[in-house]
Amino acid sequence: MLERYTFSGFLASNLHLEEEIIPCLENGCRHLHLKKGDFALRVGETCRHSFFVERGLLKQYTIDGKGKEHVLLFAPEHWFAANIETVHFGRPSNYFMEAMEDTDLLLIDQPVIDKLSERYPTFRGFNTRLLHAHIRELQERVTLLLSASAEERYLDFIERFPYLPLRISQIQIAAYLGITPEALSRIRRELAERNSGRRMIKGGK
Amino acid sequence: MLERYTFSGFLASNLHLEEEIIPCLENGCRHLHLKKGDFALRVGETCRHSFFVERGLLKQYTIDGKGKEHVLLFAPEHWFAANIETVHFGRPSNYFMEAMEDTDLLLIDQPVIDKLSERYPTFRGFNTRLLHAHIRELQERVTLLLSASAEERYLDFIERFPYLPLRISQIQIAAYLGITPEALSRIRRELAERNSGRRMIKGGK
Repeated sequence: MLERYTFSGFLASNLHLEEEIIPCLENGCRHLHLKKGDFALRVGETCRHSFFVERGLLKQYTIDGKGKEHVLLFAPEHWFAANIETVHFGRPSNYFMEAMEDTDLLLIDQPVIDKLSERYPTFRGFNTRLLHAHIRELQERVTLLLSASAEERYLDFIERFPYLPLRISQIQIAAYLGITPEALSRIRRELAERNSGRRMIKGGK
Repeated sequence: MLERYTFSGFLASNLHLEEEIIPCLENGCRHLHLKKGDFALRVGETCRHSFFVERGLLKQYTIDGKGKEHVLLFAPEHWFAANIETVHFGRPSNYFMEAMEDTDLLLIDQPVIDKLSERYPTFRGFNTRLLHAHIRELQERVTLLLSASAEERYLDFIERFPYLPLRISQIQIAAYLGITPEALSRIRRELAERNSGRRMIKGGK
């Protein structure tokens, strides 16, 4: 069984907060346990909270007119996920958020975040830094989708998320990379052949 | 000649700020005039300011190993642009920022933004809202790149930036959409043919 990451543990290891913040934050949170396949949020629903993944894996995705999934985000342990459209713009969610494994979430109410951000500069700075990091990550994703080959995108994926290919299907990875499952199979086969070629050369030395 | 949008005009029309903020902000800014083809920032350089476009057009892009451009952003009048890697993470810029027309920029120092954000909740809220809007826009771009056909991406582009196709080349638009210039020509031809077909049917009624 995978380790469970608590939010207070995450906060304690990532920034030095005034001690009273953590209980305040925890009072503004509630836990939600999802079975594999349950939804944390569906397209068209509204909510005022973000999700912190304590254990398990969330997937944020859309479904197109042909019923095909397109994955914006995989959020494993100690990741945040939020539907910005509903949490920050008060409109219906434009993504599904689904548990890909049995998942423990912490639901963090946005009004609590706003109140703590007003009161504590350290917490505010931490929040802003998370937003900047998120923008940087999305910019890198756009640039990769524009400029990198499917193989390069797959190699980047396994470098960023080395443990995810063991937990999710090829179909899901292909839906994140923007390629067909067949193209992903071919890439994996070619990489395996090249690596085994390298091992043979190395072994023969 | 295109209108020049001042930053103070932009602020006045977009939010009600305490009056003393605008001169403070303007004291923390300087103007930069770029000729077409000049760079506001190059890959590898560092800076601590964001850009506000008063007149003209900035392009934020990378160049791949084969010398091909990939456009992350077009920033026309009254848009902001910043290299988040250098402004917020203190590392060398990973994008070029180039003027595509004669361009007037306002360079807004990040330490001034930080100071004003600390002092004025209205300004802080405005800043955070810009970050959320930027994340939403990038998420939509990723989802379009994953799920939409090249034609759908082009139609989305001209809906978002109806005036840009008159100001930039097909090659640039293709580099933003992640398709070849030839594919873009074909899409434009097909759309024109379909539209002229529709006009003929309409005219014949």
